[in-house]
Amino acid sequence: MNQVNIKEILTQYTSEVNSVLKEIMNIEKNALAPGLVKAMKYSLFSGGKRLRPILTLMVAEMLDGDRDSALRVGASIELVHTYSLIHDDLPSMDDDDFRRGKPSNHKVFGTATAILAGDALLTFAFNILSKLNLPPDKVLKIIEVISQGAGHNGMVGGQVLDLEAEDKEISLEELKKIHSGKTGALFKSSILAGAYCANPDRTELTALERYARYLGLTFQIVDDILDVTGNEEVLGKRVGRDDELNKATYPRLLGLKQAVKEAEFNAEKARDSLGPFGERAFLLKQLVDYILVRQS
Amino acid sequence: MNQVNIKEILTQYTSEVNSVLKEIMNIEKNALAPGLVKAMKYSLFSGGKRLRPILTLMVAEMLDGDRDSALRVGASIELVHTYSLIHDDLPSMDDDDFRRGKPSNHKVFGTATAILAGDALLTFAFNILSKLNLPPDKVLKIIEVISQGAGHNGMVGGQVLDLEAEDKEISLEELKKIHSGKTGALFKSSILAGAYCANPDRTELTALERYARYLGLTFQIVDDILDVTGNEEVLGKRVGRDDELNKATYPRLLGLKQAVKEAEFNAEKARDSLGPFGERAFLLKQLVDYILVRQS
Repeated sequence: MNQVNIKEILTQYTSEVNSVLKEIMNIEKNALAPGLVKAMKYSLFSGGKRLRPILTLMVAEMLDGDRDSALRVGASIELVHTYSLIHDDLPSMDDDDFRRGKPSNHKVFGTATAILAGDALLTFAFNILSKLNLPPDKVLKIIEVISQGAGHNGMVGGQVLDLEAEDKEISLEELKKIHSGKTGALFKSSILAGAYCANPDRTELTALERYARYLGLTFQIVDDILDVTGNEEVLGKRVGRDDELNKATYPRLLGLKQAVKEAEFNAEKARDSLGPFGERAFLLKQLVDYILVRQS
Repeated sequence: MNQVNIKEILTQYTSEVNSVLKEIMNIEKNALAPGLVKAMKYSLFSGGKRLRPILTLMVAEMLDGDRDSALRVGASIELVHTYSLIHDDLPSMDDDDFRRGKPSNHKVFGTATAILAGDALLTFAFNILSKLNLPPDKVLKIIEVISQGAGHNGMVGGQVLDLEAEDKEISLEELKKIHSGKTGALFKSSILAGAYCANPDRTELTALERYARYLGLTFQIVDDILDVTGNEEVLGKRVGRDDELNKATYPRLLGLKQAVKEAEFNAEKARDSLGPFGERAFLLKQLVDYILVRQS
């Protein structure tokens, strides 16, 4: 299977995730605050690649898990991811006016509603999860790994470190810590939550945790590189933003060439982590390459 | 038992809730972002009455539920309540510089960290809940009622309506809708979550839902009244703030005298709702009176 095929498969998966998201977000009827629902949907349906839900789905499939539940779990994680983007773009945070080629949530709905739309998306994610059609103990593990990855020792903690690091000289170790929180933690949650849609054993969970760590790093390094070399139209956001905010990035700390090497190194590690799954990990391996060479 | 005794009992319960909160929030060690943990704890330990956790605990006790779990459930709800206060106080929302007699979270830590501290508290609440020592199906019901009450058709939805209503003439019906979302929904979650720490039947759940509705209204009307008649030092915040923000309130719509009557009427309804529990509901009835005559 070549690069063209993984793209086709991803397009198919993205479309499935979008269908489930549409079904979940069919909440206009009797909504207490219709304006809030509008703001929630604006950011959720602005053309994301749905990478996290796809990870959940691919892992669940690889382990012969419950596919329908995995789609709902993945959709919930996309709600969490979307909330984090809305809050990250706020004037008091990264102050980004555009996201995926469209005005940011707060530019359209105002700061107050944007904050609340984020809050509501995060809360709704856990509501969807609480009603999954899986054994209750599995559901609780899924809620645990998602709330862990999204919380103070994961995504939110990483964002705080990121803000604290602005205008500061930081080391590569510190940069890795920021990214492992900001991006890596929810990647890990997506992958482990997919596993809990099946019956993973200890060895499988350990291998998947390693995969998550290296895939997250690959993703973030490429993200940093694209902020330097990317095409604004393809990216849907302004490039050079990290530099403007005086943010530490891989290209800044290592130079562009070495940053690319670092991304390739982590991609190799991610692929290696999948050893225990053999041929079954075919798609997850292809996904590493896709993330490595992506243009947006 | 007289009014003095309920105050003593509440002091005792508050102290128990605070102990569990302290244990839960003992997360400094190995924290990814120590500054974030500091901001979370600042607002959480600024002297709240812990009314919502106390409701959870009293309901669980009345139904012979698991007391230790009820304390942890209540503590999680207090995390959710605290996050909502932090976000409500933000410059783009109610723009309050003081809360419980201390500078608001964003005045101390800045807007970005305040938003993230709120996000982290909300997320951590679900993490604590996912690890409760109760049957998994009960835990999922608890997560469901809390995420429902805190979300777009509950607390967050109510806050959006509240912001939309500023500088507008609204009806009493619309005001009730705002309050049922903003305050009532999480009261209801606290009460039902307490019930799910036991084995509630349909009749009990229906009675508790009625109790929650009327107690929430009583609480909010008294809150509005205190913003007119209260003592700033006892309240720990400025009075007259609703008027400044041109907010619809019960005293504004009904006049002060009629607003007091409305509070008494709802308190009576709340007490009546507890009929099915007979003598067992003694404390929950006393709590209605406490909320009605409170000074802060």
